[in-house]
Amino acid sequence: MVARSANVSRVAVSRAFNPHTSLKPEKRALILKVAEELNYTPDRAARALVSGRSHLVGVIVPDVCSPWESQEIDALTTALQNEGFATLLFKTRTDLSMDATLLTYMKGFNPDAVIAFVENVKPTILAGVLDRAVPIYVHYPRETEAGFDRPDADGPLYDRLNVLQYAGIEQAVALMQGYGAKRLAYLTGVYRSGASTAREDTLRKVMADRGLGEPIMVVGDFTYDTAYAATVDLFRVGDGADAVFAANDVGAFGVIDALRHELKLRVPEDVKVVGFDDIEQSHWKSYNLTTVKIDLDERVRALVRLILRRLSKPSAGALEETVQTRLVVRGTVG
Amino acid sequence: MVARSANVSRVAVSRAFNPHTSLKPEKRALILKVAEELNYTPDRAARALVSGRSHLVGVIVPDVCSPWESQEIDALTTALQNEGFATLLFKTRTDLSMDATLLTYMKGFNPDAVIAFVENVKPTILAGVLDRAVPIYVHYPRETEAGFDRPDADGPLYDRLNVLQYAGIEQAVALMQGYGAKRLAYLTGVYRSGASTAREDTLRKVMADRGLGEPIMVVGDFTYDTAYAATVDLFRVGDGADAVFAANDVGAFGVIDALRHELKLRVPEDVKVVGFDDIEQSHWKSYNLTTVKIDLDERVRALVRLILRRLSKPSAGALEETVQTRLVVRGTVG
Repeated sequence: MVARSANVSRVAVSRAFNPHTSLKPEKRALILKVAEELNYTPDRAARALVSGRSHLVGVIVPDVCSPWESQEIDALTTALQNEGFATLLFKTRTDLSMDATLLTYMKGFNPDAVIAFVENVKPTILAGVLDRAVPIYVHYPRETEAGFDRPDADGPLYDRLNVLQYAGIEQAVALMQGYGAKRLAYLTGVYRSGASTAREDTLRKVMADRGLGEPIMVVGDFTYDTAYAATVDLFRVGDGADAVFAANDVGAFGVIDALRHELKLRVPEDVKVVGFDDIEQSHWKSYNLTTVKIDLDERVRALVRLILRRLSKPSAGALEETVQTRLVVRGTVG
Repeated sequence: MVARSANVSRVAVSRAFNPHTSLKPEKRALILKVAEELNYTPDRAARALVSGRSHLVGVIVPDVCSPWESQEIDALTTALQNEGFATLLFKTRTDLSMDATLLTYMKGFNPDAVIAFVENVKPTILAGVLDRAVPIYVHYPRETEAGFDRPDADGPLYDRLNVLQYAGIEQAVALMQGYGAKRLAYLTGVYRSGASTAREDTLRKVMADRGLGEPIMVVGDFTYDTAYAATVDLFRVGDGADAVFAANDVGAFGVIDALRHELKLRVPEDVKVVGFDDIEQSHWKSYNLTTVKIDLDERVRALVRLILRRLSKPSAGALEETVQTRLVVRGTVG
């Protein structure tokens, strides 16, 4: 009916509603206008039954509100909309109480793709609950001169975004060392986080290579409040440090505030601080944080490429994309 | 088949997959276990065609990554999951280029409810593109001794969350005045934002009632960088102020940093600062912001109640829920 009124083919009408397909802008505009007059919308529930495509991308996250996650979800949602997908949010809980229900529930929406930003929902679990969607995981490989490691090919199929951390962490340690740091502490992320343990392993390797010995371990959980309290303990109960490398930027903010406001120490004169992520808040003048940047736009483009590659080749083996890290120098090392 | 294997009724199976319905925990666990063994999931695409329910709640937002929005989406997603709904994110763009496509696109997913956190997508526009979902808007009413105003009943049907701002703003002005502020500036939100203009109108009324005259107007847009630059201009180009009330907390952070790091003024000794929202970051020691709080949990509960009330009474007139604001006193006024 829309095709007849607009005097175009059915295929063109179908294309008009899918931002991912090519169509002349004026033709798309005409079709959308006619469709609006006729109050026509392609019914996705009906279409999904026929095509098997839901145009939904499930995103499994622990927290939407932590700055890094929210900035990534924001950029990802924009990029996915440009490709004709909507973002369906699924929040897991730290106590895991919701996860079984959640996963069954997610399957019911029949997502075209699923990105797992959590590590407690393993590929083996997702493989059991997803029909055709191949999940995407973020992987922090061990790097050597020869390249980086890849997980076993034996397990369930999943696609990977590799984040290479060595370059950024090496630059951070070199800068701290260059400004005289000798006793370096590492503030961890949440217990057993793969991102945090990969950062720790790389940091240990870099420090050993540079003759800096072992890092002083400080237990954090990626939050400001825990970082603040742990830093106070490090200096009041422990022996302190002359540099702190935090597993994420929000943790680094907690370290800086504890140093300045509670311990009356100067950053960077008395203690140097480096974070990880480069969130929007890191350039705020109260922090002005030197940090290892993961380029968010690059990371999001890689994720979208993984989705499109997988949809075009449903039976391909494990796909991967790789992004780099680098140091952004601001005011907390000097 | 699941019903037979688990030896329960079909109704019980259906209830097991809907967290909102009541069912004994052990019975639900048994059914989900059997369903998993049989690899059964209720197909929402098929069910949606029959029931007309999609179990999706559309959320239209301009930015997922600004702290207030991300904290609200996080809390809302948790609350919606508890009620058996998934959150479908739709991002509008400031240039509005995506909006027509976006809305048609949203309709295709047939959401059960839509919450509009943006003001450029008007009820009249949404009424034209949504079938059965009645949109929910956040409303900042004008308050008088007699109560508060309500929009015309003539327009398209929409439900409302009323945020009453008078109490919180009055407390903020009283505190600043109590500490000697005489020349008060207002840092606005983004151009024509209803939230910001409602805050300005209330502030003007409160200041006039307290003999403080007119606020000095400073143009912001809810972001840190604009607030920072506008504050520098206020003091270097304009005549300064002895107190700044910002339309949101992130703007207040920009004001504080500009005062301290660029203008070398002390907060609160030289200039007092108050924000609006009480986001997570406001208790961070670098800011330790005195701010007008909108209770996020209360606000999310009210939004979920609006959705459930509407779904149980699809043909009811405009529904409303109301939340209050109050001052949270920290370190930036004194």
